[in-house]
Amino acid sequence: MTPMESFRMPREASTLLAVLLVVFAFGCAGSPDSPPVEAPLPAQDALASWNDGPPKRAILGFVAAVTDKNGSDYVEPAERIAVFDNDGTLWVEQPIYTQITFMFDRVKELAPQHPEWKTTQPFQALLEGDMKTVAASGMKGIMEIAMATHAGMTAEQFTGQVTDWLATAKHPRFERLYTEFVYQPQLDLMDYLRGNGFKVFIVSGGGIEFMRPWTERVYGVPPEQVVGSSVKTEFQMKDGKPVLVRIPKLNFIDDKAGKPVGIYEHIGRRPILAFGNSDSDMQMIQYTKAGDGRRLGLFVHHTDAEREYAYDRKSHMGTLDKVLDMATENDWIIVDMKNDWKVVFPGS
Amino acid sequence: MTPMESFRMPREASTLLAVLLVVFAFGCAGSPDSPPVEAPLPAQDALASWNDGPPKRAILGFVAAVTDKNGSDYVEPAERIAVFDNDGTLWVEQPIYTQITFMFDRVKELAPQHPEWKTTQPFQALLEGDMKTVAASGMKGIMEIAMATHAGMTAEQFTGQVTDWLATAKHPRFERLYTEFVYQPQLDLMDYLRGNGFKVFIVSGGGIEFMRPWTERVYGVPPEQVVGSSVKTEFQMKDGKPVLVRIPKLNFIDDKAGKPVGIYEHIGRRPILAFGNSDSDMQMIQYTKAGDGRRLGLFVHHTDAEREYAYDRKSHMGTLDKVLDMATENDWIIVDMKNDWKVVFPGS
Repeated sequence: MTPMESFRMPREASTLLAVLLVVFAFGCAGSPDSPPVEAPLPAQDALASWNDGPPKRAILGFVAAVTDKNGSDYVEPAERIAVFDNDGTLWVEQPIYTQITFMFDRVKELAPQHPEWKTTQPFQALLEGDMKTVAASGMKGIMEIAMATHAGMTAEQFTGQVTDWLATAKHPRFERLYTEFVYQPQLDLMDYLRGNGFKVFIVSGGGIEFMRPWTERVYGVPPEQVVGSSVKTEFQMKDGKPVLVRIPKLNFIDDKAGKPVGIYEHIGRRPILAFGNSDSDMQMIQYTKAGDGRRLGLFVHHTDAEREYAYDRKSHMGTLDKVLDMATENDWIIVDMKNDWKVVFPGS
Repeated sequence: MTPMESFRMPREASTLLAVLLVVFAFGCAGSPDSPPVEAPLPAQDALASWNDGPPKRAILGFVAAVTDKNGSDYVEPAERIAVFDNDGTLWVEQPIYTQITFMFDRVKELAPQHPEWKTTQPFQALLEGDMKTVAASGMKGIMEIAMATHAGMTAEQFTGQVTDWLATAKHPRFERLYTEFVYQPQLDLMDYLRGNGFKVFIVSGGGIEFMRPWTERVYGVPPEQVVGSSVKTEFQMKDGKPVLVRIPKLNFIDDKAGKPVGIYEHIGRRPILAFGNSDSDMQMIQYTKAGDGRRLGLFVHHTDAEREYAYDRKSHMGTLDKVLDMATENDWIIVDMKNDWKVVFPGS
């Protein structure tokens, strides 16, 4: 059994770690080799990967309304901001956030340069595959691993590390590159929105610089439209050359109540459409829906164990619990993966 | 004499304050009622407000090179990122950063709700027009004024306050709205760049939310392409409604070495063109120029006392000193306002 697989075995440990990870919002990732970004689809093909049903009809109705110049719900193109969570909303987040796997793999790769890790926890446990001890190291331990793998290098170096890793790392169940497991219906939706004058942003609890190297190629979302968690960065002159160095301090946690803050700081406009998949996206959708005029808030409900995963109220990643209870009264749209998505992954 | 005018009188005091203000980077602002954003100019009219000379030729040559698909300097449109400082680069920053005037005016407006300010420094001094004492209150005092006027309200309330203030406040020398004193050559340049596939960002030491309410109308730069200094923001539920509340803590200083960091965090790509006007923009331009391939770095040199202002090495706002010494060896282009700009302001 690989360490990654055993990571899910000890139930209590994995739950504790999951909580820590969610708290730290270090939950997101991506990878190369993916569906090309296509030109906006003609209206008749729009959302072809969606089955007819209330969510698809809600989306089509919403977009028709906000783009109808003569209608009362018309929204100027500049204000057509759509935000999408990443993990579990645009790509697979099970069995563990991809960025966590990246982090653990990086420790193994860096180990030869850190002989002290052989006798320092939680690195020792991680290198020995003892995930229970890793989990037991708690918040402090996880943060040490995160900082050792996300800081201490230049911006360019980190981008290279992410790119290299995603070029070969494979999803444990699907056994292909992580970026092959993005959701076709969401690719279609983002294209459809862009084709209707929307600007599409990603607003993820995951690391902003873990996403930026590949979101343009995979989702058509350029780096400047990606919002995420971050470490601090410092401008330094090294050998007469200016560089940005990533330093081991948390800068911003773009999760839960942090998501509306991240939107305000990065975008400076309130979105009119927001799409998430867990309780961590609730505030982003509350904030979106609280604006004047017509708004749309949606959540992916992972109901498809066969094609993807089935989980909600008690998941160790992407818990959808409060949202399910509050959806009706708040007019949040729950997208049932099994019933509402004709296909899940590109080429399937 | 108005308090604003007397603010410049006590030389030492004003210098001290200036230093503090620059340190805090609370130096930027804008206002309504301005030149409309025009469609990209045809090539023959591009930069009509610029006199022929080395800077204009450098810009035209640079844009021609990076947009020439067959040339060795070609840059993909997505990577054509241009960044502009705001105060002194896109609009007038003398005799004092507009945002500072806003801050002082707001204290007067808020005074009735704060009877304690009558006997609390530095508010008492400010209300009495004793700018020397305000300056003597130092960093701590200035920060108190900044926080009292930039925090404690919702995001929407602050936007409203900025918008209202800029709709009536007038520049002390030109006696018209602040947003009338944006530089026509820069409006033309931004249009020209956009017409050539560039995405134009503002990267200013000024408050991000002080700029966003008007940059789209005045410069054609949408809120999501504005980077600046900020206070912390918190998501709260107030009477069942989600709001973002600005809280009195510094979040980010987008000045000097902070500018490349702000660019990395917000844009996530290295610009290929950067335009500033002071030593505070030096790191932004160093960072821009250090990228691979052809890059352009420019500084406005304020040499025109008649049409605007003449200042450089010893200014209390926008000091251009080190840059002048280092320009030649670094291939930075110094734009001489008096000689290089045919017109300075729209309609002039």
